[in-house]
Amino acid sequence: MAESSAGKPAAAADGMSYAPKGRPAPVVKAGEFVFAAAALDHGHIYGQCNGLVEAGATLKWVWDPDPAKVEAFRKAFPQARPARALDEILDDPEVRLLAAAAVPSERGPLGCRAMRAGKDYFTDKTPFTSLDQLAEARRCAAETRRKYMVYYSERLHVECAVFAGELIAQGAVGRVIHVLGLGPHRMGPPAARPAWFFRKAQYGGILCDIGSHQCEQFLFYAGAGDARITAARVANYGHPEFPELEDFGDATLVADNGATFYFRVDWFTPNGLRTWGDGRTFILGTEGCIELRKYVDIGSDRMGNQLYLVNGDGERRLSLEGQVGYPFFGALVLDCLNRTENAMTQAHAFKAAELCLKAQALADATRGAA
Amino acid sequence: MAESSAGKPAAAADGMSYAPKGRPAPVVKAGEFVFAAAALDHGHIYGQCNGLVEAGATLKWVWDPDPAKVEAFRKAFPQARPARALDEILDDPEVRLLAAAAVPSERGPLGCRAMRAGKDYFTDKTPFTSLDQLAEARRCAAETRRKYMVYYSERLHVECAVFAGELIAQGAVGRVIHVLGLGPHRMGPPAARPAWFFRKAQYGGILCDIGSHQCEQFLFYAGAGDARITAARVANYGHPEFPELEDFGDATLVADNGATFYFRVDWFTPNGLRTWGDGRTFILGTEGCIELRKYVDIGSDRMGNQLYLVNGDGERRLSLEGQVGYPFFGALVLDCLNRTENAMTQAHAFKAAELCLKAQALADATRGAA
Repeated sequence: MAESSAGKPAAAADGMSYAPKGRPAPVVKAGEFVFAAAALDHGHIYGQCNGLVEAGATLKWVWDPDPAKVEAFRKAFPQARPARALDEILDDPEVRLLAAAAVPSERGPLGCRAMRAGKDYFTDKTPFTSLDQLAEARRCAAETRRKYMVYYSERLHVECAVFAGELIAQGAVGRVIHVLGLGPHRMGPPAARPAWFFRKAQYGGILCDIGSHQCEQFLFYAGAGDARITAARVANYGHPEFPELEDFGDATLVADNGATFYFRVDWFTPNGLRTWGDGRTFILGTEGCIELRKYVDIGSDRMGNQLYLVNGDGERRLSLEGQVGYPFFGALVLDCLNRTENAMTQAHAFKAAELCLKAQALADATRGAA
Repeated sequence: MAESSAGKPAAAADGMSYAPKGRPAPVVKAGEFVFAAAALDHGHIYGQCNGLVEAGATLKWVWDPDPAKVEAFRKAFPQARPARALDEILDDPEVRLLAAAAVPSERGPLGCRAMRAGKDYFTDKTPFTSLDQLAEARRCAAETRRKYMVYYSERLHVECAVFAGELIAQGAVGRVIHVLGLGPHRMGPPAARPAWFFRKAQYGGILCDIGSHQCEQFLFYAGAGDARITAARVANYGHPEFPELEDFGDATLVADNGATFYFRVDWFTPNGLRTWGDGRTFILGTEGCIELRKYVDIGSDRMGNQLYLVNGDGERRLSLEGQVGYPFFGALVLDCLNRTENAMTQAHAFKAAELCLKAQALADATRGAA
């Protein structure tokens, strides 16, 4: 992993034996790893570029058909030169990776185009809206040997979620037998959402979209290579004015190693919550358990990045804001340079996508049967 | 409901608009409602009798074939006269109700015997270990017009769980669309458990046993009359030395009113937790959500009975220990006297049992298919 050894440890009061290993630092010098941003449809593009820039990557280009989006983007990243067309980026041999946050239904085709132009690709989640797109990307990745990486931000860009993986690897909870993810999101004023947000063919369904984070976390925390969907459902409980919106979804899965999973996603974050969603992850092991309060610790004065660990040693709370960093991004840069798979394997990125698509398909097939 | 109007309100800092209505007080005078305790196989009999005695009921008899259990029981309830046989209790016309915590597989037959002797019956959960027992109890209740009530303690005897019902009734979270229950339990030293704990024919399976609490809470919080099991599974992840023990189970349900449910139960409470299990309930409504930390608030200095409410008014934590009481017991006494159904309807008590039995049956039928 691309980690600095000079990072500061977690507060000693939280238990030195569970101190984070260190905050990541830039892994390359300026100009050593050049990338471009394109398709600014989802705000996640800012997080994707932040992570890469903090890892030392050089952001050379930006492109979007909407000049307003480009202008806004360049306020945050003035170093990004506006391209006249996507091909200007794809034709630039200096560019190694294309970061993009297109409308979900366009992410797969855009990625294949980038890979066939010789670029690695780093898309916002969800990476696909159909199994056909996934199959095409798998073919394309095999043929081009380029990467189709995915910004599963709810683990990769959340410090307590990163650290949970380290704790599991250290054996802090024994064998992981169950993962439970809650992913509530705030919709906010509908007028502030793009039209595609309400069109199922474009966003893919709630399990496909925000459920993709959840499937990725399950595979990662359970250390599983594959899983089977055992139940899935979607509903529109509170937004009849948007008939294609799914405001609720959940599913159960069982992994190839026997670990089990449940996740729920929804668009019902109450207006009084301080942040966009009370995302939680519960990891049950044979020797202990972990709870992540990712973005807020409700009813307290704490915001997120709180990791609660209970095992044979007792109960402890680790406050991890600013303590762990985001090693994924530096590892991704090095993976692209060295053709390694330390940040995330291609198989894992695709498998998480496959599971959320299959969960969505099962829910779609049985909807109304409830 | 059998509640005193003189109870003390919750701390004003917690929000007067959500103050508990008042602590229950005795509803009858000494001798007005006489009951007996029998079949002391599960320690829950103490909670059952405590609740009834606090509501003013008079405990006249105790019976168990094991004199040691009777002796221990009489240390807590010296007023209970040891019966020479169960029939001595059933033949006593003064006795209106039999409270019992038999081995689970014997609870149904014991209840029918009590009802046919003219007594109401108040059993520890789980009330049955087979659908045949449930059918027989339904017949018996219809024929005798006696009550087959169940000590679903994880709601009835937990103040924050009681108050959650009041908040929902007040509309604090809008329409309930999802309930999620986590019921981890500590097994403790196996030698301290009775033999029946490890025999599936006697305890019924984990979904049938500790899952019964969960199904009851779902029906209650969702205001549902019936539900369908959509998925269920059980496993033995960590106790191969007890092949009939199920140390993990979970299930998803959908109610007749469209509300959905997930619950997980297990025997993996870590040794370092302060109490026997970190029981949680999450209730998601269209206008807000509730989280119950029933027995402990991990990583803090608080024990349980913490209710977290987030809705349009903001986030708040209600600390409800000693604030709400247990209105079920007084209501049950009055129900028995007045032949009403304010504490719990017979249909609800049976339906919760039916659901946990059906979940268990589905899990049993598909086990190994995973």
